[in-house]
Amino acid sequence: MFETAELGQVVDDETWEGHVDQVREGLLEVQQALRAADFPVIVVFAGIEKAGVGDTLNRLNTWMDPRGIRTLGYAMRDVEGRDLPPFWRYWSVLPTRGRMGMYDGAWYHQPLCSAIDQQINEATFDRELAEINAFEKMLADDGALILKFWLHLGAKQQADRLEALASDPDQSWRVQPSDWIELERHGQVAAQAEHMIARTSTPEAPWHIVEGTDPRFRDLRVSMLLLAAMQRRLDRPEAPSPAHDHWAGAPVLPRSILSTVDLKRSLKKSESRDLLPRAQGRLARLQREAQARGIPTVVVFEGWDAAGKGGSIRQVTQALDARQVAAWPVAAPTEDEKANHYMWRFWRRLPPPGCVTIFDRSWYGRVLVERVEGFASPEAWSRAYAEINVFERALVRHGTVLAKFWLHISSEEQEKRFRQRAEVPHKRWKLTDEDWRNREKWPDYEAAVHDMVERTSTRVAPWSLVPAESKEYARVEVLRILADHLEAALEGGLEVDPERDDSLG
Amino acid sequence: MFETAELGQVVDDETWEGHVDQVREGLLEVQQALRAADFPVIVVFAGIEKAGVGDTLNRLNTWMDPRGIRTLGYAMRDVEGRDLPPFWRYWSVLPTRGRMGMYDGAWYHQPLCSAIDQQINEATFDRELAEINAFEKMLADDGALILKFWLHLGAKQQADRLEALASDPDQSWRVQPSDWIELERHGQVAAQAEHMIARTSTPEAPWHIVEGTDPRFRDLRVSMLLLAAMQRRLDRPEAPSPAHDHWAGAPVLPRSILSTVDLKRSLKKSESRDLLPRAQGRLARLQREAQARGIPTVVVFEGWDAAGKGGSIRQVTQALDARQVAAWPVAAPTEDEKANHYMWRFWRRLPPPGCVTIFDRSWYGRVLVERVEGFASPEAWSRAYAEINVFERALVRHGTVLAKFWLHISSEEQEKRFRQRAEVPHKRWKLTDEDWRNREKWPDYEAAVHDMVERTSTRVAPWSLVPAESKEYARVEVLRILADHLEAALEGGLEVDPERDDSLG
Repeated sequence: MFETAELGQVVDDETWEGHVDQVREGLLEVQQALRAADFPVIVVFAGIEKAGVGDTLNRLNTWMDPRGIRTLGYAMRDVEGRDLPPFWRYWSVLPTRGRMGMYDGAWYHQPLCSAIDQQINEATFDRELAEINAFEKMLADDGALILKFWLHLGAKQQADRLEALASDPDQSWRVQPSDWIELERHGQVAAQAEHMIARTSTPEAPWHIVEGTDPRFRDLRVSMLLLAAMQRRLDRPEAPSPAHDHWAGAPVLPRSILSTVDLKRSLKKSESRDLLPRAQGRLARLQREAQARGIPTVVVFEGWDAAGKGGSIRQVTQALDARQVAAWPVAAPTEDEKANHYMWRFWRRLPPPGCVTIFDRSWYGRVLVERVEGFASPEAWSRAYAEINVFERALVRHGTVLAKFWLHISSEEQEKRFRQRAEVPHKRWKLTDEDWRNREKWPDYEAAVHDMVERTSTRVAPWSLVPAESKEYARVEVLRILADHLEAALEGGLEVDPERDDSLG
Repeated sequence: MFETAELGQVVDDETWEGHVDQVREGLLEVQQALRAADFPVIVVFAGIEKAGVGDTLNRLNTWMDPRGIRTLGYAMRDVEGRDLPPFWRYWSVLPTRGRMGMYDGAWYHQPLCSAIDQQINEATFDRELAEINAFEKMLADDGALILKFWLHLGAKQQADRLEALASDPDQSWRVQPSDWIELERHGQVAAQAEHMIARTSTPEAPWHIVEGTDPRFRDLRVSMLLLAAMQRRLDRPEAPSPAHDHWAGAPVLPRSILSTVDLKRSLKKSESRDLLPRAQGRLARLQREAQARGIPTVVVFEGWDAAGKGGSIRQVTQALDARQVAAWPVAAPTEDEKANHYMWRFWRRLPPPGCVTIFDRSWYGRVLVERVEGFASPEAWSRAYAEINVFERALVRHGTVLAKFWLHISSEEQEKRFRQRAEVPHKRWKLTDEDWRNREKWPDYEAAVHDMVERTSTRVAPWSLVPAESKEYARVEVLRILADHLEAALEGGLEVDPERDDSLG
């Protein structure tokens, strides 16, 4: 989930100068228009310590007219209201129609802290988050526009930020001893935050994850998302914004998650000849054990056309006992499948205990091809992220090993492979006009992949983005990662270490 | 919640003959129309043992064309699928678009049984119910029409049903030894079922509670609700039915909950002179203790115009220390209040620890006057029931004592009181033309009160329906019930015993 906010996004001088005046003008304009509108705007900020919640609030108050904004920081956290039911303090500070309220932490602060400190268990955390969902839904049903921003820093970025502040005589006062403790707990904080964001990103009040490394990127992105959401609502006051409205049309990201995949990784044929059988052997051994223990496995392959999904799948199936493995190519739905919910055809194919199901394309079609080609309505693909998370959580809680691969190649590599296919008679059937047409939508697909990773790469079901320009490298890598997942499950830990950098290629 | 399904509803021969053919024809018609429609219909049945889930399923299969219906009873409960993730078995039997599926228990069976047997705690139960909500929402978002029926029997009705079956030689085989154990657990079953229904009655998949005492009433009511819901959806296929559609326009109930209030209860003035001070003394003593222990109290007064709310409130406040009590008359919202969510003005008035807030009319205005007069949209008042339940649960979980009174008088008594007011100069100000106009909507208000009790009378926040034709009786009764609530809280049990018949007057 947070991979997409650890890309080192930077706004250079030119981009800054080119946008900032326009954004400020826009914000003042929508704020002015809001006064006459009959809905309130509620903006919640939370994030990694030192990612800049306070600075962002200050910036927004500078850019907008602070008289129309109620901003509450720490004050909200434990003043009066302690003796009244938990939500009392929030009711007492909600903005009225036509006004904005911006909050540091708000109703998320207490549950998140309690979960991080392990004062509450997961079921209690979930219940509190469900209460928050009910609260926000009630406000949204009444018309409120709700935006939530998680300002993120990776562990390294957080450390860098602390070092920088501590070594600056003018800023060192901002670093508390508790900040260093917080840094050590980065993994715990991120784990609980991910859990929280996954469960409280609802159509009526979605979270936006914003990288906080560069203050200019952070402030510009928050402002542009806020501006876009307010403009859309003001333009269509009668229609409550569905979730997609909050991100569709948002300013294009300078970098997508796919830019982090190191496409130079490769293996020589000779290395592959050595490593491939070993990787297959390891996988076979682990799968035999999983079979004996009745552990089911689900493997998802997604990726660009011609990225080598077919070849990778063959290497996996070769390693396994054919009686225990089924590979399902997922194409356009049949009549039968269309007569059911889009998730139905995947539920039907789930493996029995000890077996493996490989999906060659999968339920992610909903948020990839169906989104980009317009086969699913924005409402439908927007809500699919949450549906997919619920589905995958059910699999993992049931004890299923789940591995998800995106095989990545560059646009140039794809073109090269297409041309090769066109030239080789026995490969020509693989290539259609459609494949060439799809290439034109590469940026749309890239945005969809970015969103998909942000919204569905979770600790229990992480995406593995595999560099696939070297087929040899990709095949060995897929086998290794799948084996790692199995090994982790067999060792009793279902959670794959998200810190391990090679899990993202 | 179940008070409304323990009224002894009976369908007489005439009503039966007058409706049954029409309902059967209607069902066959909508079933025919459904074939060409692009949504599935999912009907879930659950209920008290012997309330007739099986019989109702059989009846519907007789009345409709069984070839278009997939009916699953116990088979669903633990066949194949045990080795696959929990929802797998349901996915495998969902109806396709254009077809119906009717299920005994379905996804509710296992969580409810586990909760009743105390195999899972409340937080886990809540989490499983939240997963069900997500599952049903996903199906509804995809177009599915979902109806859920809880077939109810009171403890006495269940015992009568068992006795009747056991003593009939042709039927006695239907009674299992486990049924008698089930009867003993009636209170536990009802408590957990109430919890389940409150949390899973969503706009997209609301529960209908249907009394199962008279099979003809049960089958006719289920069929008419099903028919009405299908007709509405077929007429407006593009608009997903909001919750209110599922009950608005449903056949009028032969009896409403208010018919159970014994209006003959009365006290002579001499009795009252004796009992009133004693009841006030008891209340004062208990409230002093609550004050010392910091327990807050919220009292809600609703009732017909001229039912005596003002007088009852005065008797309560007289008993209490004026510094600790505040009474808020709730009239049409001010400009300030309109600028906020409708619940805001109530949150603001919540009592601090040890204090008492009395609401003379309350948040229930949303589902009473605003519903009947059309001040709130059907969508808005429909979702208010769940919003109110969440609000009251938050109060009770915080340790607040909550008492809710509906003061009941007959329409004739109201007319008499209006005339008296008109004649007494110093009372004339109390009476407006509006009061007379409201009388014409008596049946609408009665239906609204019935729905309100069905949907918001819960174990933690039960309604007390107080017969108020004798003002003396009502005043003593209100003081007694309020004192009982305080006493229960002081004894550490927040739950008021719902079996105690006088809690309903």
